[in-house]
Amino acid sequence: MNDTNDAALAALARTWLDTLFAPWVKALDLQVESVRAGRAVLRLPFAPELCREGGTICGQALMAAADTAMVLAVSAQLGEFRPTTTVSLNTAFMRPVAEGDVRIVAQLLKPGRTLMFGEIEMYGADGKLAAHATTTYAMV
Amino acid sequence: MNDTNDAALAALARTWLDTLFAPWVKALDLQVESVRAGRAVLRLPFAPELCREGGTICGQALMAAADTAMVLAVSAQLGEFRPTTTVSLNTAFMRPVAEGDVRIVAQLLKPGRTLMFGEIEMYGADGKLAAHATTTYAMV
Amino acid sequence: MNDTNDAALAALARTWLDTLFAPWVKALDLQVESVRAGRAVLRLPFAPELCREGGTICGQALMAAADTAMVLAVSAQLGEFRPTTTVSLNTAFMRPVAEGDVRIVAQLLKPGRTLMFGEIEMYGADGKLAAHATTTYAMV
Amino acid sequence: MNDTNDAALAALARTWLDTLFAPWVKALDLQVESVRAGRAVLRLPFAPELCREGGTICGQALMAAADTAMVLAVSAQLGEFRPTTTVSLNTAFMRPVAEGDVRIVAQLLKPGRTLMFGEIEMYGADGKLAAHATTTYAMV
Repeated sequence: MNDTNDAALAALARTWLDTLFAPWVKALDLQVESVRAGRAVLRLPFAPELCREGGTICGQALMAAADTAMVLAVSAQLGEFRPTTTVSLNTAFMRPVAEGDVRIVAQLLKPGRTLMFGEIEMYGADGKLAAHATTTYAMV
Repeated sequence: MNDTNDAALAALARTWLDTLFAPWVKALDLQVESVRAGRAVLRLPFAPELCREGGTICGQALMAAADTAMVLAVSAQLGEFRPTTTVSLNTAFMRPVAEGDVRIVAQLLKPGRTLMFGEIEMYGADGKLAAHATTTYAMV
Repeated sequence: MNDTNDAALAALARTWLDTLFAPWVKALDLQVESVRAGRAVLRLPFAPELCREGGTICGQALMAAADTAMVLAVSAQLGEFRPTTTVSLNTAFMRPVAEGDVRIVAQLLKPGRTLMFGEIEMYGADGKLAAHATTTYAMV
Repeated sequence: MNDTNDAALAALARTWLDTLFAPWVKALDLQVESVRAGRAVLRLPFAPELCREGGTICGQALMAAADTAMVLAVSAQLGEFRPTTTVSLNTAFMRPVAEGDVRIVAQLLKPGRTLMFGEIEMYGADGKLAAHATTTYAMV
C-alpha cells in the first residue's frame, strides 16, 4: 500500500464518515488523520458538549469514537465499505481526559473472511493512554 | 425499599440525567422508566438521528445508553450521586433494532465499597435481547 | 424439551466431557448437574490443587469451567457436539471462593446459525455470585 | 531498570511461579523467558494434555497462561509479590494452535495504586497472534 493509495483511502474514509454513520455519531465531529489498510487514526476534538459533570470527556464519546474508527479500519482493509456488524466491543477506561483532543488509533489485529479482530488505543493530548478497546466484527 | 422510595429515586434519577451527563449524551433523550437501589430501567426512543446506514440503531447509541443506565443504577444503590469511574464496559451486539424503542435494564450484580459490577440488558420492541453489556465501576 | 430428553442430554454431556476436552481440563473434575437445550449446570468441586496462595480457588479454574460449561450448553442447543470456536470469553471476578464447590450455570442468550452468545454465572457455596462471564461462539 | 535487575526479576518470577500458583496451574509448565518492570514473557510448552478434540491447544490453557503472565508482570512492576485480585480478563481467540509452543507476552498498559490495566498477546510458533487478552487488576 503506497502513499497515494493511503491518501485515497483517507479521502474515502471521510466520505464514509459523512454518509454512513448516524447523525448523532457525526455530531462527535471526528476528524480523519490517516488511514491505511486495516488501520485508521482519528481525532476527537475536545468539546464541552462531550463533557460530563466534572469537565472530562464522557466515556460514551470514547466508546463511540472507538467503534467508528474500527469500522473505518475494517472498511480500509476491504478497500470499500461493506455492511459489517460489531459483534462486541470491550472498553477499559484508564485516565480521564480534561482538556485537549483525543487521538484514536484503530488497528486490525486479525483480518478474516467472516470475523475480524481489532484493537483501539485512545490517547490524551499528553500522549498518555486514556482508554483501550478491543473489538470483534462479523462480515454480514 | 418501598414504592414511595422507588418513586423518589426515579425522580432523583431524572434530575441526575438532566444535570450530570454530557449534552451529547442527553441528546439520546433517554427516559427513566423505573429505578430502585442497584437497578435502573430506561427507554431509548427510536430516532432517525441514532440510525446508521441501513436504518438500524447504531451500536454507539446502545453502548452510551448502557453506560448511562448503569451510572443511575449505581447512584440509586448509593442513594445519591457520587463521582464514580467506569473502569470497563463490555458490550455484545446480538440483534439489530430497526424500529421501536429500546428498553435498557441495568442491574448491579455486586455492589461494593471500591468496585461495583453490573450487567445491562437491552431489549428491542419485540421483547428480544438486542444487546448485552457488563461493567465495572470504581468509587473515586 | 421434556424431562426424558433432558436426562438424555445430561448423559450425552457427560460423554462429551469425557471425550472431547483436554486432559488438563478434565483434571478439574467438573460434574454435570443438569443440561437442557442452551443451558448447562456444572459443579466444580473444591480442591487444594485449584487453590492459589491464600487458599482461594484460582481465577484460571473458574474461567476454564465457564468455557467448558458453555461448550456443553451450545452442544446441548444443537443436540450434538459440533466443532465450534470460542471467539471470546470475558470474565469478571467478584468474590473469592475459599471453600465449597462452585456452581457453574451456562445459559445461551442468543442462539444463531453462525454466532452464539452466552452468559455464565459462577456461584459459591454460600449462593453468592463469585464470578460472571460472557462469551461468543462461532460455528465452524 | 538494567539487565542485572531484569535477570534478578526473572529469577524472582520463577520463584513466584513455583510457590504462589495453584498446582493445577503449575501443571501448564509455564517457562519464564524474560521479565522486567510491568512486563513478563512466558512460554507455554505444547503438550497433548492441553489439547482438546481436534488436536489444538484448548482456550482454557491460553486464558490461564494469560492471567498467570499478567500476575508476574504486575508483581515485577511492584518489585515484589503482593496480593492482588484479577478484576476481569477478556480474551479473544483468533487462530488455533496445533503445534509448537505459545509465546505469552504480558504488558502493563497503565500501572496504578489501586487499579492496573494490562494486555496479553499470545503468539503461535509461526509468530502469528493466536489470542489476545486485556485485564484489570486491583491491589488488595
